[in-house]
Amino acid sequence: MTDAYDRLTRRFARMATVEEAVAMLGWDEAAVMPDGGAEARADQLATLSGIAHGMLVEPEVAADLAVAEAAPPADDAARRNLALMRRAHRQATAVPGELVEALARQSSTCEKIWRAARKAGDFAMVAGPLGELLALVRVQASALGAAFGLAPYDALIDQHQQGVLAGEIAPVFARYEAFLREALPRAEALQAKRDAALPGAAPFAESVQEALCRRLAAEAGLDFAQARLDRSTHPFCGGTPSDIRITTRYDEADFCSALMGVLHETGHALYEAGLPRGFARQPVGFAAGMAAHESQSLIVEMQAARSDAYLGFLGPMLAEAFGQDAADFSLPRLSARLRHVTRSCIRVEADELTYPAHVILRFRLEAAMIAGDLAVADLPEAWNQGMRDLLGITPPDDARGCLQDIHWYCGTFGYFPSYTLGAMAAAQLMAAARRAVPDLDLALARGDFSPLLGWLRANVHAHGARFGFNELLRQATGKMLDPADFEAHLAARYLVG
Amino acid sequence: MTDAYDRLTRRFARMATVEEAVAMLGWDEAAVMPDGGAEARADQLATLSGIAHGMLVEPEVAADLAVAEAAPPADDAARRNLALMRRAHRQATAVPGELVEALARQSSTCEKIWRAARKAGDFAMVAGPLGELLALVRVQASALGAAFGLAPYDALIDQHQQGVLAGEIAPVFARYEAFLREALPRAEALQAKRDAALPGAAPFAESVQEALCRRLAAEAGLDFAQARLDRSTHPFCGGTPSDIRITTRYDEADFCSALMGVLHETGHALYEAGLPRGFARQPVGFAAGMAAHESQSLIVEMQAARSDAYLGFLGPMLAEAFGQDAADFSLPRLSARLRHVTRSCIRVEADELTYPAHVILRFRLEAAMIAGDLAVADLPEAWNQGMRDLLGITPPDDARGCLQDIHWYCGTFGYFPSYTLGAMAAAQLMAAARRAVPDLDLALARGDFSPLLGWLRANVHAHGARFGFNELLRQATGKMLDPADFEAHLAARYLVG
Repeated sequence: MTDAYDRLTRRFARMATVEEAVAMLGWDEAAVMPDGGAEARADQLATLSGIAHGMLVEPEVAADLAVAEAAPPADDAARRNLALMRRAHRQATAVPGELVEALARQSSTCEKIWRAARKAGDFAMVAGPLGELLALVRVQASALGAAFGLAPYDALIDQHQQGVLAGEIAPVFARYEAFLREALPRAEALQAKRDAALPGAAPFAESVQEALCRRLAAEAGLDFAQARLDRSTHPFCGGTPSDIRITTRYDEADFCSALMGVLHETGHALYEAGLPRGFARQPVGFAAGMAAHESQSLIVEMQAARSDAYLGFLGPMLAEAFGQDAADFSLPRLSARLRHVTRSCIRVEADELTYPAHVILRFRLEAAMIAGDLAVADLPEAWNQGMRDLLGITPPDDARGCLQDIHWYCGTFGYFPSYTLGAMAAAQLMAAARRAVPDLDLALARGDFSPLLGWLRANVHAHGARFGFNELLRQATGKMLDPADFEAHLAARYLVG
Repeated sequence: MTDAYDRLTRRFARMATVEEAVAMLGWDEAAVMPDGGAEARADQLATLSGIAHGMLVEPEVAADLAVAEAAPPADDAARRNLALMRRAHRQATAVPGELVEALARQSSTCEKIWRAARKAGDFAMVAGPLGELLALVRVQASALGAAFGLAPYDALIDQHQQGVLAGEIAPVFARYEAFLREALPRAEALQAKRDAALPGAAPFAESVQEALCRRLAAEAGLDFAQARLDRSTHPFCGGTPSDIRITTRYDEADFCSALMGVLHETGHALYEAGLPRGFARQPVGFAAGMAAHESQSLIVEMQAARSDAYLGFLGPMLAEAFGQDAADFSLPRLSARLRHVTRSCIRVEADELTYPAHVILRFRLEAAMIAGDLAVADLPEAWNQGMRDLLGITPPDDARGCLQDIHWYCGTFGYFPSYTLGAMAAAQLMAAARRAVPDLDLALARGDFSPLLGWLRANVHAHGARFGFNELLRQATGKMLDPADFEAHLAARYLVG
């Protein structure tokens, strides 16, 4: 270890500590803050983020990086850590300060107008601000691309999931489009024979749902001595590895969304809790990227919790908690409901079979926007045409079309592919876990996640950001990302009568 | 306005914004954080506090202060703001960095050992660490004293309540001691005829108490669009002026402490909410000191909420909320309970008549410790002797004696006088408010705090830190601190059969 590398680790730990404060204040804002705090909170978050960013761009960092790279640490993980420090520094310095500020300002402006536009279902309201924001994002993408030797859109993707290129994603998504074209009608025909009505009788008391969510999360491995479960409009997993904050929302008319939502966030939380403590607050100690993160939420929610094994355990528990007839929560009833496929206009309401279609649409549209091949004014029509092509439906209005997601309107491009890469990775990891842990489903049938969690901890969580997405998969499953496992999973679940 | 003053206002606003984050994380730690977060939280708080401190001691600050002082702002409040910036800078630079660190480390060590010592009731356990801490505090006090031209103990008091000297406090406290010597036996003789049993029948459901607390705080003027009420082991008021966080604890066996505690914290909260927004995040926009702050909590809790007028309103409301007989919550029953005088060993359980005795004891002991006239080893005996002299009781053990308060064990000396200066100021302000607002008690009899609050906003809150403690009182009441109003208040409440 050189002095320079040592100084860098202290600096990055300090930055990460400030970012932890940002994460906590972000949770507070979403979960408990009274409305009156909004303005002051925006200042607090901007100031702390600015301070953390400032630590990264001080001249000493470049000097220390150069010295450390000339005599890199002997330890592999420390060398990777140093490489990730370089990457963070390059990201922070590639984009001029004025552009960073202009992006922050325009994102904030555009997001505010988007909220009104979505409410009004009027894309024209936000087209101008989105156009201005896109222009800035394209400059940012070029600057990042130049710094990293990547095409502009690749540079944006890379910010969210390192080392994945649009040129690799495109064929994977094209293959899925073909799979879906055949699978969706078959799945629909099969499920037409089943009763997908909600099991049991509403209302399902919030307090009972909350207690159930807490119990299921704990049984899935979440340690509430190091975590909280609260409410927020948009469920998320925040906080820090030793103080994880997950949120959900409750609907007394339907218990499914809170329960499955909490299991989803629990997957994210378990990843955070399992990150290598020896590299806490170091770049190599964080998660391996957003696709990797999504793989962990989806392996819990989609792969494990929606399995026959687990639903067979869940049904009687639900009946007892809600004081209702166990027969109403039988495996056929529960699985028909929790695995119902629908051609929905709304991404966040989509089932796992059609969800990738929503992502594929956004991937293609944002790639075209960044490339300059799609003008903002043409977005609604391109969106609706894409929905017709992919799912055969047309959004009734832009609120349920191109206005539905916040991402682009707050300047986030290149994020969407992570959702589907994560879903595919989850299937691939689950298949590998099943091969490695023979009793995995027997345990799930008892509500016991520990064999699965043990495998994930050793093969995913403990690596932190040691490996890129594909290398992480290769180490854990023996191969890079392979959509065949996801297709096999979907076929077994949706295409068998 | 000079450029230098402008730069200073921006810098102080930025510091204050970081301190807001510290305040929010402090609330989170006390109110909602899972245990697992403790270590990371300590790092976050230390890092952010260090960052804020760092902003204050950068060389540019001294340079800008010198330039701004050479051509001070024309506006009175801005000139005061500049003076308070100088004061903050002097406080931050008077004490060498190594001493600040040594104090932080030893405070943390001593506080941890104190927790164990208090639990064990064993002062000897913590005598060594407290001695080391006191030695550091005495160096700190000398350094601050040298910088401010104050005696060491005065310099410590000045940190909590600017412009109040031990030499001014001592005669005020001596006078109170004499007053109490006569008043306490008389009050006890009078109350012996009254039934001070808790009105109503326990249990008093937590949920009902919480709803009541929320209602009473709101009716006292707390705007829950800019505030929250939560639970914590030690009640406090935290947060920021537009996002105030007050806490309490509930005891189903007795509703008094939560109710009165919340009204106390509401007084603090109303002060914060009423600070001048035009000087938000500037030194002159903060509260005028801890004695001033305590005057605002006590004017609500002790002066207003324990008045005949308000208790007459509160009784029927309590009876209805708890579903009990209104006769049990009559004014005589409620006031006998809520104004019961006890010679208690514990400060935080003391009534308003004997509370100053607890403060006088601590004031004298800490003055002697800072002066080097009282050794830590002699503290328990001096404490117990003081309790005998002042209240005629002897603590059964050190846990209920000199180990009961955290202050000294975390390095806080010079704070205690604020409690009683605040109580005296509250009485003085209430008397002035009653003179200025004739219908004040009629309004309280309807549960309406708005006439009182309106007067406090104009005469106290809106001034922020514009004036020192005595000048604030002079502007609001026509005279500097005068214990006569507090004595008159106590005589009317406790010495009339």
